[in-house]
Amino acid sequence: MPEAASAPSSSRAVIGDSEFDRDTAVTRREPGVYDIDLSAGWTIFGAVNGGFLLAVLGRALADALPHPDPFAVSAHYLTASRPGPALVRTEVVRTGRTLSTGQASLFQYDDEGNKVERIRVLASYGDLADLPDDVRTTATPPAIPPLEQCFGADDAPAPVPGGSAIADRLMLKLDPSTLGWALGAPSGKGEMRAWFGLADGRDADPFSLLLAVDALPPTAFEIGIAGWVPTVELTVHVRRRPAPGPLRVSITTRNLAGGFLEEDAEVWDAEDRLVAQSRQLARARLA
Amino acid sequence: MPEAASAPSSSRAVIGDSEFDRDTAVTRREPGVYDIDLSAGWTIFGAVNGGFLLAVLGRALADALPHPDPFAVSAHYLTASRPGPALVRTEVVRTGRTLSTGQASLFQYDDEGNKVERIRVLASYGDLADLPDDVRTTATPPAIPPLEQCFGADDAPAPVPGGSAIADRLMLKLDPSTLGWALGAPSGKGEMRAWFGLADGRDADPFSLLLAVDALPPTAFEIGIAGWVPTVELTVHVRRRPAPGPLRVSITTRNLAGGFLEEDAEVWDAEDRLVAQSRQLARARLA
Repeated sequence: MPEAASAPSSSRAVIGDSEFDRDTAVTRREPGVYDIDLSAGWTIFGAVNGGFLLAVLGRALADALPHPDPFAVSAHYLTASRPGPALVRTEVVRTGRTLSTGQASLFQYDDEGNKVERIRVLASYGDLADLPDDVRTTATPPAIPPLEQCFGADDAPAPVPGGSAIADRLMLKLDPSTLGWALGAPSGKGEMRAWFGLADGRDADPFSLLLAVDALPPTAFEIGIAGWVPTVELTVHVRRRPAPGPLRVSITTRNLAGGFLEEDAEVWDAEDRLVAQSRQLARARLA
Repeated sequence: MPEAASAPSSSRAVIGDSEFDRDTAVTRREPGVYDIDLSAGWTIFGAVNGGFLLAVLGRALADALPHPDPFAVSAHYLTASRPGPALVRTEVVRTGRTLSTGQASLFQYDDEGNKVERIRVLASYGDLADLPDDVRTTATPPAIPPLEQCFGADDAPAPVPGGSAIADRLMLKLDPSTLGWALGAPSGKGEMRAWFGLADGRDADPFSLLLAVDALPPTAFEIGIAGWVPTVELTVHVRRRPAPGPLRVSITTRNLAGGFLEEDAEVWDAEDRLVAQSRQLARARLA
């Protein structure tokens, strides 16, 4: 059982009552303005994970907008977010019958006490439950070995994401064929594939999909580029409410040029449905 | 000569002195606020083309921000823009050494005299001239026949984009293998490929790339879906300043589900460089 293999506790957490739900919950201070204390539990190298921040802003917008589900979320990353208090300001841009559009920004105070904007998003929301179930697709699930044959942070000797607090909260099992970088032998291919879930067994929902698209090691590692690959812009399309069970995430980079690269992510659910797509533009300095 | 084959006049227009430059030029009313009269020349079925609107907002942001070139532009489409007066409001979100981020909205008055927001964008700008020229890519230019073997609106009998004013301003030559829809025999594949340029022979620049990614017929036509495919969200990444000469644009749709589809566009220049990538989420109702 994947869950049993990865969940720290024997009892699985559920949507609405899990660490992810508690840590992404925002408190309404006044209409459209929310407080949150960003947990240190979702950081990598001291910075709060960009996908986790999308989930936080996504929760705030779900409260501010008349529709419950993020359909398209476009984020521009301004400065690195740190654990601690943060303020989220939302604006309702447009409300329609089937879609509504909003904007949200997350602010923190820097060491000098200056208010700094960390990330700003534009997002269109709808109701995934209202969508017809028809599918016409040429997309196919990523070729990835069974979960038991993939490697996570707890599988010595493979030193995957390692050292980051978020690793303890994710069930992240990397396809061995995209693990060369961790063994000092990057494949040179801009590919990263993994089984993804939350470590406590909480099933996926549209908000955890926002986390899933930015939770794998950067494809740059397999291309042979070490070091930080900061996201400039990241857009996620949520295409379907994910079925229960672990997700498969495939990330592909085709074009590294001029010190920037794109990362295209696909998220597939246990019913072999493409539930989310994302693309980000990130900086990657060649060694 | 491609230009000769498509340019209405014998003399080619140049960047900075062309209809596209004049029609996308905004007039600064006050810092960050711009006026423009949207020309009817860039409409399809009476609505101003979404890529053209990106170029208008892109020009305004280039004036408002310290950096000249759009690197990542994320647009959420709110209501259909009409020819006539429009107001563009920009906001400088963050300025950095190599990148700056801004926001822009375009407003018009509706028939009842209400101010309506048409489109809102978040954008990160930089200077393409400052980027190193190194490239590592697995992306390959689209397989598309020579320009002379492709079909444009002026090539009877193929009734391409037809009837839209913008068709007269574009050098758009569609790959015959993605023209089935125009002959009543859609391929069923979500692919659309074309040579692209401006009809007056003006070469491409980062702003005309914003037009190029949304100028082809919708892939939905080849999938067999007639009618309007309104864009919900569109993000463009400009990866390089395009070389002179016609562009090749390839658009792919893999997943049509729940009444929505994605359109992934690639734009290649005459030096076989991938100069822009885009993805949009659009509504597509199954017949």
